[in-house]
Amino acid sequence: MLESGISPLLLYDIPSKASGTAWSPNTWKIRYALNFKGLPFKTVWTEYPDIEGLAITIGAKPTDVRGGSPYYSLPVIQDPNTGAVISDSALIAEYLDEAYPETPKLIPAGTRALQTSFRVAYKHLTEASAQFIIPSIPDILYPRSREYYVRTREIRFGKKLSEVMPVGDAHDAAWAQLKAGFTKVSGWMNDDEPFVMGNVVTFADFVLAGELQWFMKGFGETSPKWQDILTWDGGRWAKLLDSLKGYEGLDEEQYQP
Amino acid sequence: MLESGISPLLLYDIPSKASGTAWSPNTWKIRYALNFKGLPFKTVWTEYPDIEGLAITIGAKPTDVRGGSPYYSLPVIQDPNTGAVISDSALIAEYLDEAYPETPKLIPAGTRALQTSFRVAYKHLTEASAQFIIPSIPDILYPRSREYYVRTREIRFGKKLSEVMPVGDAHDAAWAQLKAGFTKVSGWMNDDEPFVMGNVVTFADFVLAGELQWFMKGFGETSPKWQDILTWDGGRWAKLLDSLKGYEGLDEEQYQP
Repeated sequence: MLESGISPLLLYDIPSKASGTAWSPNTWKIRYALNFKGLPFKTVWTEYPDIEGLAITIGAKPTDVRGGSPYYSLPVIQDPNTGAVISDSALIAEYLDEAYPETPKLIPAGTRALQTSFRVAYKHLTEASAQFIIPSIPDILYPRSREYYVRTREIRFGKKLSEVMPVGDAHDAAWAQLKAGFTKVSGWMNDDEPFVMGNVVTFADFVLAGELQWFMKGFGETSPKWQDILTWDGGRWAKLLDSLKGYEGLDEEQYQP
Repeated sequence: MLESGISPLLLYDIPSKASGTAWSPNTWKIRYALNFKGLPFKTVWTEYPDIEGLAITIGAKPTDVRGGSPYYSLPVIQDPNTGAVISDSALIAEYLDEAYPETPKLIPAGTRALQTSFRVAYKHLTEASAQFIIPSIPDILYPRSREYYVRTREIRFGKKLSEVMPVGDAHDAAWAQLKAGFTKVSGWMNDDEPFVMGNVVTFADFVLAGELQWFMKGFGETSPKWQDILTWDGGRWAKLLDSLKGYEGLDEEQYQP
């Protein structure tokens, strides 16, 4: 593993009331990645309304342009060993591979384009997820983030969050569509191998696991929807999360809102 | 390379009046693949209305279900060395890797899911292509295929093929969207490397090149649209086709309609 002497990297993440505090799919990808690489890190819990100011203060780049303005999002990492500040989970993954070449690779040589295409294809096939999960998120956020989240997501959907989740037949059809998207992804993978690249863990697995964490924390572990997902594709997704359990490790800091 | 003694595989492909006869994106993928592997093959030119009967006769599986009925498409390969008959370009690629393990791999170990995701993501990002290219295809087909193609595509679009290509601002917006899709794919790749996996050719490159052949043959090599594509992304797509020129080789058979 690593030589000692590496100072903990800072991972900026959004807190929740869910067990373990972490819930956001994109920050989960980097939490997994840091643990997978054995890099020491410390979480800096950041409520939504504080993200933009934080990013500007530490020099983190925006990750998008929305309504003509720069848009800032987490994860951001700050690496005291190099002075680097990086936004965007995919760019962070590339940075970690480059800055710590002796740690296991997130993006094996030659697979950068393919790993990116995996994220694009996954997102396309599972776009039905947003209408189910986003309305559940406010319940697990602390008040300042909750207010921000509800306000910004209602603008994005153009309706009340309480009206976003489809009902009746439309609900069942959309849920079936989400399930079918996962079944497609499962079909790309080999039946007897747990990970996207077979028996070797790569960033693509953390993409999937990060999204699954989002569902699990948002719906709740005992919810019928999460329990349903655990049965999909012969239990493949339950097994994937299980196989990656060793890389979940949160640091010890408890969030105090 | 290969030991001698391999009988030519049969590649079932759809003929056109375009130079070189081959034009169909999915059959091009396998034409490239066979040449890349150095496998001898012979093209069996098959007009559209004959595909279903052929497939049933030689035992090629349908590649889709449409309107409740099995749907047959090319490419199909028939391998006299093993007796195998395989439909669907992705399954053919897997078959060729397995049946001829000493030839260069189309799908390097561990990349099956990622290669599949590449095709899904490419198709999603370039879905604007169909409205431009499909109306051009009848002009290069022979009469029996042309009649079949126009009839089936008009059903699919729900309008006359002559009304499919957008006009005015809608044309320019859709063309810009297609260009942006290619620019995204280009952004996944490394600037100084020609292929999806860097400096090594894989099936993903034949997916791109097969689609580019479709544009080139459909629009025509001197058409403004094809000339425009050749300039996109710093000429990356022109260079890709050039780099793969050695794998284009048609067999010598001329098609006689």
